[in-house]
Amino acid sequence: MPHHCYLNGVVSPVETTNIHITDLGLLRGYGLFDYFRTYNGRPFQWDWYWERFERSSKLMRLPNPILKEDAYKAVLSLIEQCGLTDCGIRFVLTGGYSEDSVKMSKPNLLIISEDIHPVKQKEYETGIKVISHEYVRDYPDLKSTDYKHLMILQADIKDAGATDVLFHKRGYISELSRSNVFLVKNNVLITPNRKILRGITRKVVLELAKDHFKIEERNVELKELLEADEAFTTSSTKKVLPITQIDNKIIADGKVGKTTKFLLDLINEKVKNW
Amino acid sequence: MPHHCYLNGVVSPVETTNIHITDLGLLRGYGLFDYFRTYNGRPFQWDWYWERFERSSKLMRLPNPILKEDAYKAVLSLIEQCGLTDCGIRFVLTGGYSEDSVKMSKPNLLIISEDIHPVKQKEYETGIKVISHEYVRDYPDLKSTDYKHLMILQADIKDAGATDVLFHKRGYISELSRSNVFLVKNNVLITPNRKILRGITRKVVLELAKDHFKIEERNVELKELLEADEAFTTSSTKKVLPITQIDNKIIADGKVGKTTKFLLDLINEKVKNW
Repeated sequence: MPHHCYLNGVVSPVETTNIHITDLGLLRGYGLFDYFRTYNGRPFQWDWYWERFERSSKLMRLPNPILKEDAYKAVLSLIEQCGLTDCGIRFVLTGGYSEDSVKMSKPNLLIISEDIHPVKQKEYETGIKVISHEYVRDYPDLKSTDYKHLMILQADIKDAGATDVLFHKRGYISELSRSNVFLVKNNVLITPNRKILRGITRKVVLELAKDHFKIEERNVELKELLEADEAFTTSSTKKVLPITQIDNKIIADGKVGKTTKFLLDLINEKVKNW
Repeated sequence: MPHHCYLNGVVSPVETTNIHITDLGLLRGYGLFDYFRTYNGRPFQWDWYWERFERSSKLMRLPNPILKEDAYKAVLSLIEQCGLTDCGIRFVLTGGYSEDSVKMSKPNLLIISEDIHPVKQKEYETGIKVISHEYVRDYPDLKSTDYKHLMILQADIKDAGATDVLFHKRGYISELSRSNVFLVKNNVLITPNRKILRGITRKVVLELAKDHFKIEERNVELKELLEADEAFTTSSTKKVLPITQIDNKIIADGKVGKTTKFLLDLINEKVKNW
């Protein structure tokens, strides 16, 4: 069944849903979004995603026009209409239509159901390569629609035979373009805690890991990552995805590490029973 | 007559022109734009605007799908259709529709005719107040659609009784949210030349001024601006607009300076005969 979309209270097929060209998300990049997926037909960690969406909305001064319970109803109805037990749900909130391309009137809220574009199984087995790029996201703790660095770097990522980009600034790493980054060194799980989006999967992984490993959330140098025993990235679609190469540097022996595998197993177990 | 809009070769009334919700400008902030105005029915400095648009397109790796002569024809036709001798023309180029919200296929090019929202005459007489904000634009020499800082700061600007925001970083000024900044000190015209968008009106003003003043294009400290004899901002819609207050600091005696008035007269003369 086709995917549907909720736009300011009206539900219609994604294929035929448009927005007017005076939207401030389009004209001024004034938009935020969030994305989560379902398992077994149920939104994964809905409460946490909703909390983050509300937080982004406040930080971006874009009033959220929908109540939590109504948003949840809309989400469930989109899931039902697409007929998939596992799908992605995207929230996009923009500054709305503007008569002079600056003045805001009423925000536009889109909720879209989407196919999931899963990570290839091979990538879990071999790990991925990423390129590094000196940059820190603007308003890093806010999930805005600003991904122009990723978009501009797409060709470089492809040319390098890589699949994503790692951002770092003045020697410290922050995150990948759409996911968080972890490293393992001497059995300690280490992850940056500044200039990052606080990923929901990052939070899930930290909770799953806390009974098994010492955890350090702190500033992390790029050098530490390059010299790690293991590295991986976390996101709602990637879960726990090993990183085995950064630019020309192979991480440790270049193979997927045991801690990464262990955490991937834990999260797979969790979502299986969601 | 209603404004019209060119979208990928098709012209339609602005009021009924939409884009599909999978546009990468909307979903990923992957878009650039340019804006110029007409005087006496003719695009002002078309060649320079086109050159900048092409440059932005290359820097943003968004292939420009239209030839200069076809773009010019489209612009003239939009001007004719709106029936205004003085109107604004906006170019917006985005990453186009994407099937997975990342992969680019064919860019979307919009060309829109708009009403001009002119500066109030009073503001030329009294000058404007701006607030200052520590920030430097991402890819400052590229005119992307990323104006989220301005949008987020709108409420602060209004609360301060100001009309715009001045960006500075580590003690150096760059530009206002949508215009360049100049100061006059001891009869020397001084303007930042780094981390800025190279405004077309900035260029026009520099050309008009060069026979009358010593000009310095260089790094400019915020302190210098606060202690200037005069300050003003330049843009296609503002032309030469005096700045008389920055936060709580009144510039010089708080009145519009003679150099500012002189340059405004020069540019008004130029556009009158365009």
